[in-house]
Parts: sequence; C-alpha cells; structure tokens
Amino acid sequence: MNRKFVSQFLVASSIGIGGYFIGQQAERKKNLPAIQSESRVLIAANQSSHKLKPLPGLPIFGTVSAAVPAPTSKDYAVEKQRRIGQIMQYGFPGFDNIRSFDDYVLSYDRRNRVAHWVFEHLTAETVRKNDAVDRSKCDFVEDESIHAFFRSTNADYRRSGFDRGHLAAAGNHKHSQLHIEETFRLSNMAPQVGKGFNRDAWNNLERYVRKLTKTYTNVYVCTGPLYLPKVEGDGKKYVKYQVIGDNNVAVPTHFYKIIVAETPDHKLEMEAYVMPNQVIADETPLQVFQVPPESVERAAGLLFFDRLNRKQLTKINGKKV
Amino acid sequence: MNRKFVSQFLVASSIGIGGYFIGQQAERKKNLPAIQSESRVLIAANQSSHKLKPLPGLPIFGTVSAAVPAPTSKDYAVEKQRRIGQIMQYGFPGFDNIRSFDDYVLSYDRRNRVAHWVFEHLTAETVRKNDAVDRSKCDFVEDESIHAFFRSTNADYRRSGFDRGHLAAAGNHKHSQLHIEETFRLSNMAPQVGKGFNRDAWNNLERYVRKLTKTYTNVYVCTGPLYLPKVEGDGKKYVKYQVIGDNNVAVPTHFYKIIVAETPDHKLEMEAYVMPNQVIADETPLQVFQVPPESVERAAGLLFFDRLNRKQLTKINGKKV
Repeated sequence: MNRKFVSQFLVASSIGIGGYFIGQQAERKKNLPAIQSESRVLIAANQSSHKLKPLPGLPIFGTVSAAVPAPTSKDYAVEKQRRIGQIMQYGFPGFDNIRSFDDYVLSYDRRNRVAHWVFEHLTAETVRKNDAVDRSKCDFVEDESIHAFFRSTNADYRRSGFDRGHLAAAGNHKHSQLHIEETFRLSNMAPQVGKGFNRDAWNNLERYVRKLTKTYTNVYVCTGPLYLPKVEGDGKKYVKYQVIGDNNVAVPTHFYKIIVAETPDHKLEMEAYVMPNQVIADETPLQVFQVPPESVERAAGLLFFDRLNRKQLTKINGKKV
Repeated sequence: MNRKFVSQFLVASSIGIGGYFIGQQAERKKNLPAIQSESRVLIAANQSSHKLKPLPGLPIFGTVSAAVPAPTSKDYAVEKQRRIGQIMQYGFPGFDNIRSFDDYVLSYDRRNRVAHWVFEHLTAETVRKNDAVDRSKCDFVEDESIHAFFRSTNADYRRSGFDRGHLAAAGNHKHSQLHIEETFRLSNMAPQVGKGFNRDAWNNLERYVRKLTKTYTNVYVCTGPLYLPKVEGDGKKYVKYQVIGDNNVAVPTHFYKIIVAETPDHKLEMEAYVMPNQVIADETPLQVFQVPPESVERAAGLLFFDRLNRKQLTKINGKKV
C-alpha cells in the first residue's frame, strides 16, 4: 500500500518491454555466435557469486532499474538482459505483473495467486544435467517480489491435497543451482493433482518437451493454467474452480503448454497441449491432448508467439501447414 | 496474432505509466488553478471536432504514440494527457491492458472479457448535465481496440438474461456527448442482473457517488467486478460464475466501488462498497454494503489509491481513522 509497490509495477512493466526490445536486438545479433557464447561463459563464472536476494517490495529483475540495489556485475546484468531477450524473442503473451528470473520469465495473476504464464527457452545445452546441481537442496519459497496480499504461501498448500506443481519444470533447469532454485519460488507453482497428474501425465509432457532439444536446435515453451467453463444441468456455462488456503490460491481446471521448436535448418514447428488437472490414465498418448493453439489463446486471454511470422511455421501439432 | 497487437500492448503499458507520471506532475501543479481551468476550456472547445475513430488493432489512447494516427490537435493531446493524469493521480490499481478514454480509464481482463477496473474523477462541474447531451443517441458498441479473441459483443449479451451494465456510469458523463458515448463501449460493460440490481440498488450507489460532488471538491471512484469464493457442502471453497455468449463473457458474482472524496479543506475520505450481482431488496441501506477497502484489494488482486499517503485519510467508511 505504498510507493514501493507502484515502483515495483513500473519496473515490471518497463522490464517486460525492455526485454522485448532486447529480444529484437538479440534476433539481429543471431549471426554473432562468438559474442553470444562468450557471454554464456560469463554467466557460468558469475552465477554463484551473483545470486540476488529477494527484498520485500523489490522486484527480482536484478540489475536494470534504479529501484534495485547496485548490480554486483555489469556483465551479469548484460547477460541477464540478453537471456531474457532470447527467451521472449517471439513475443510476450501478456504484460501483467512480469517477473524475469535468470532462466525463465513469468507473468503473475494477482487475483488467482497463480502465474498467467511462464516462458522458457530450452536447448540441449541448457537442459544438460550438471552433476554439481542438487535438486534436493531446493526449498519451496514464497516469492517476496509479490505483494503479501497476493502471494501464495506453503501454508496455503498444506493439507490441501494438491501438489505444489512447477510451471517452469525444475528438470529443465538442472544446468545451474541458481536456475533450478529459482523454479522453486511459489509464484512458479500451481495446485496440481499429484498422483496421476503432476507426477505422471504432466511429468511425461515435461519430459517430452525436454527431449525435443535432442532433435531441435531451440525449443520455446509457454506453460500456464486454464479455468475452463462447463455446461451444467441448467444448460448454462459455468467456470468453477476450487481455491485453497487463507490466500485463496486457485486450483486450475486445466494446464496448457504451447511449444515452438526450431529445426537445425531454421524451420519452426508449433505444438499445443491442454491437460485436465485430474488423474489421467497412464497409457493415454500425448497426442490426445493436442489442441489448436488458438483455442488456448481464447481461453487464457493471451496471445502466444505473436511476434513470430506464422508463415515461418511449417507444422502445427505435427501436421504440415 | 501480428505485430500490431504487440505494439498495442506496448503502447498500453507506456501510456499507463505515462499517465502515472503525468499524475505526479498534475499533483505538483495543483496550486496553479488558472492553468488548469484554461486547459479545461480547451476540452470543451475541441471535443466535438476531435473525436477519434477506433481503428482495429490500434489503441484508443489518442495521441501519444507513433502507433496512432497523427493527432488532430496538439491541444487535445495535451489536454487528454492532463485529464488522464488527473483521474489517475492516486495510482493505477494494476497495469493490465489499460485503455484511456477521454473521461475515464479502464483495465481490461482479456480472460473474463470484462474490465478489471474503471477509474473516474468526478466534480460538480464534470457531472453537470449539459442539455445538448442526449443519452438516447448512444449505442452499445464493441471495443475494437480489444483483440477479437477477447472482445465481448452485443450478441454475447442477447437473450442471456443479463443487462449490459455500465462500470463507469453513463450518468457521470453527461457533460459531453463524446464522454457519454465512450461509456457505451462494451469494454465498459459487465453482465448485471437488471431488475433489482443494475436498475435499482447498483443505480442507487452510482447516484450516491455522483451526489458526493455536492459536498466534496473532488471524487475519485474505482469500479469493477469480483469473483468471490463460497464454501460448498464438501467444506471446500469454490469460485463459480456463469459465462455468456460465444465469447464466454464472465458474469461477476459481485461488484465493488472504492471512493476517495476530497473535502474543500483538502481532507480525504475513503469508502468501499461490495454488492452481490443479484436482486437486492429496495429498502436495503447502502451502509450494509460497506467493507474494509483491503478486503476488496485482496479479492480483486489490485491495490487501490496506493499513491495516496494513507495518513491523509481522515475517514474510512464514515469512521474517523
């Protein structure tokens, strides 16, 4: 309820947009791989010493605003901006309460206390497991960059019967301890049915996406919740979902993933999946959950990959277009 | 699904923020009433000739971005910016999909196809009826600044049983034909129960707010929908609301108004109301619907008047603080 929070939102917006323009720049610089791999080395060298502590009322963007403590390294800031631009190069699905972490970007829905979307960019290199990384050291932590009124807490999930389900999958970020830890913020969680969904069908979809990096040079994936209407006995359509804990964290009815994968010869293929947040029979093939990307856009109130020229898309859900 | 929409969102964000800073400036200039009333005259002189036509994919902000056709008048642009800054001077409740009309500001919820909030600034002068203004000439029109995927239409409301209920009340904008017409955009509507609510209890609240301008110099009012959870038979909390039409326009369970009124000696008083979207008995006094402002903030995922120093508030819901 004070100025700090306004400045937080201003920073959020301007970073979102900053990232967007940086994205354009990154795209233009695609022909300079030497520079890019040089800066990637910088990340690896710097990441342990430059972990930013979340401060209440301050965003986690790191190092690009006067509202944030002085950066520990200019290189880190530059590299982080470059990485955000790379992740978001095909457009932001929306601009509500953006948070840019080191290896994924998130838009937070303050009313439902669950993200609108998280965006990741995966390559064979970024998903490669680093033996020094230890998932068991990761704790689920509140995201203090979210105002306390709208922040989900571990207590909200306790005894709810739902898992704290990752949106940006932990398994996509095993390249660095910082990166995997950042996926454990509660702003990246949604209440998910555990057995039969989070630990099974949804996990299979996450593994499938990760495996795409074996055949595709770049994999972009946007993940989020849906709250889908159903026709009830009176013939009318209703949206209905449970909310858990003192903070009324919404339990999404469904989750989506929209994927764009780039072939080694720079062709782009899109796939879209929607899964219900319920027990799904083990043998169900993934293809059952494929949907037209537009149907997710309409339901989520978002536009995915809208900076991508749709003429570049050679396949949607495995079918030539 | 193309670049135009991205630039629309960028403009939206930057205008939101632009308006915010202008608000600061407006605040600092409060001691220059001569300048302000001079620019107010400009509005009145220009408004008929400078009505901007909505263009698909272009925002309605008018005249502050390269993405928008050349302004018809620099004075109009300056005056519009000043007015937006005045309306929003105590802070934006959120920054999602902002639309700045000539006499009110709106944030659109693309998932629910209803605004998150609309913000108005009322004075005895702005609510005064102008005999040249004719409400019967106003048509309910689609807001073409909203992407077609997320835009509510008249067809969505037809035979739904719900009124197209104004959030920014038409009756607050009878000073100019342009202003009242702008309140008839469907982005300013929400499905409301007609008899017993929109045409009765809710209308009484709108009239009450308007009447405050007789005793207060400035009245700021933020209005929006709520989707409140209820405990069901299984002891769990659920959010449940109907959606209407092909575009699944959400029927809010409740509506809120948060008001800040400034006394002639510059004291500020706040009131907050939440009404259920249902038939309300005629004799129910307004006080029954008063709630702590914070409860609305938590439920809506918004922060109201957060640039206002709470120490300036002398009363909340009629009680001294």
